[in-house]
Amino acid sequence: MFCYKLTLAYDGTRFGGWQIQPNALSIQQIVQDAIRMILRDKNIIVIGSGRTDAGVHAKAQIAHFKSENIVDLSRIQYSLNGVLPRDIRVKNIERVPFDFHARYSAIAKEYHYHLYLDSVMDPFRRLYCWHVFKQCDVFLLKDATHLFVGSHDFTSFANERHDEKPSINNVRTLYKCAVCEEDGGVRLELRGNGFLYKMVRNIVGTLVDVASSRLSHNDVIKLFEAKDRKKASMTAPPEGLFLMNVEYNSQPFPVPLIQ
Amino acid sequence: MFCYKLTLAYDGTRFGGWQIQPNALSIQQIVQDAIRMILRDKNIIVIGSGRTDAGVHAKAQIAHFKSENIVDLSRIQYSLNGVLPRDIRVKNIERVPFDFHARYSAIAKEYHYHLYLDSVMDPFRRLYCWHVFKQCDVFLLKDATHLFVGSHDFTSFANERHDEKPSINNVRTLYKCAVCEEDGGVRLELRGNGFLYKMVRNIVGTLVDVASSRLSHNDVIKLFEAKDRKKASMTAPPEGLFLMNVEYNSQPFPVPLIQ
Repeated sequence: MFCYKLTLAYDGTRFGGWQIQPNALSIQQIVQDAIRMILRDKNIIVIGSGRTDAGVHAKAQIAHFKSENIVDLSRIQYSLNGVLPRDIRVKNIERVPFDFHARYSAIAKEYHYHLYLDSVMDPFRRLYCWHVFKQCDVFLLKDATHLFVGSHDFTSFANERHDEKPSINNVRTLYKCAVCEEDGGVRLELRGNGFLYKMVRNIVGTLVDVASSRLSHNDVIKLFEAKDRKKASMTAPPEGLFLMNVEYNSQPFPVPLIQ
Repeated sequence: MFCYKLTLAYDGTRFGGWQIQPNALSIQQIVQDAIRMILRDKNIIVIGSGRTDAGVHAKAQIAHFKSENIVDLSRIQYSLNGVLPRDIRVKNIERVPFDFHARYSAIAKEYHYHLYLDSVMDPFRRLYCWHVFKQCDVFLLKDATHLFVGSHDFTSFANERHDEKPSINNVRTLYKCAVCEEDGGVRLELRGNGFLYKMVRNIVGTLVDVASSRLSHNDVIKLFEAKDRKKASMTAPPEGLFLMNVEYNSQPFPVPLIQ
């Protein structure tokens, strides 16, 4: 058995999210079906670095699968992109050590969230930004990011999953929470060692409340202390969110094909 | 009666083009219906600077309409954007001299055409670029643009319209035909005093043929001389094309509201 690592980009607009689920079209299902068909192996399981929710996009989602076959990597990539819908692309495929795991080997992730602040939305970005109508002061936004950087218990910024037990330890470390100005608005760049369910979108919702003076810095500090999601701001909508990068401990170098 | 100038941006993906037509959803129809409803006047006609074809986009299409009403410009803009679908936006509305005509007053237009040249398409640009699979040498592409700049009879680069008499004079002047490199490919910038039907897309198809060494410079010169569309290259697909700007003789300054 060999292990293969996929780098995927997808426009999440029309999907019910990454994860296979009964009543929605999932990216995992579509990619897994395509790989099973091309490698003629119905048992292949594709495992992602984590779930992205309905409507969330990825510029580089990482997934792995195991197969008994030694595959011609560039040919498989080409075949997959021929079979997959145009809103899902395989950007790269490589062989990795057998113990590589897209989820458990990950040590950090980077997400970007796009806020559109001009009064008239750019029609070409309507599916890729949150259009914030209320007053949003970019200076206040930048100033509030330091409240989130570092190691914190992010319970107040995590939604509960109905299909999973709550995480025992909700302490996560945010290495970066930066505000970059871009045409028509700003991009929030968050990099951390792990993210709880809907954590990025809850942080963004809270930051926007600070930027519109609905919350003070002190309110945010109290929010962290409360460890209660119900007290926090609205969850920012999914369409502004992009999974940008997943990092692994040592860059898993391709295993030579000769056994 | 007063004359109003609209600046519109639209994602052309799901439309049958600008022009009102029997069997397709047109941008002109949607905008005109919205204005008629908001101004409560069923006789208003919206006239664009020119047609954009099915699937072609606009960052700044210009249109005008006439009305007996003195309208609150920012309120009308806000109302229109509330009523219009999210893939059409009114970027600006202003009052202009009564003799302003979006089409006949135009003295120049700028179009951009995006070519995607990497082997794996970016899923976020699939609806906004032509993915050129064949070899496309950017140096050859740049080198060939000078064949088109200046005043030429562009008959060989104009498709015939079935619903209009052919133009008597097919001489047009291209002020700019530039190749700008961008992420994953190039952007062709064309600015001219007028464009024949499908002229930009036919020029792009020909340039790509030169860049892939299917046509020599001499072939292009002969093509101009032939004045025969049937001899030219394929028409580039619509999704790569953006109407970027329409220029008018003197910037029509807003007419003061006081009569």
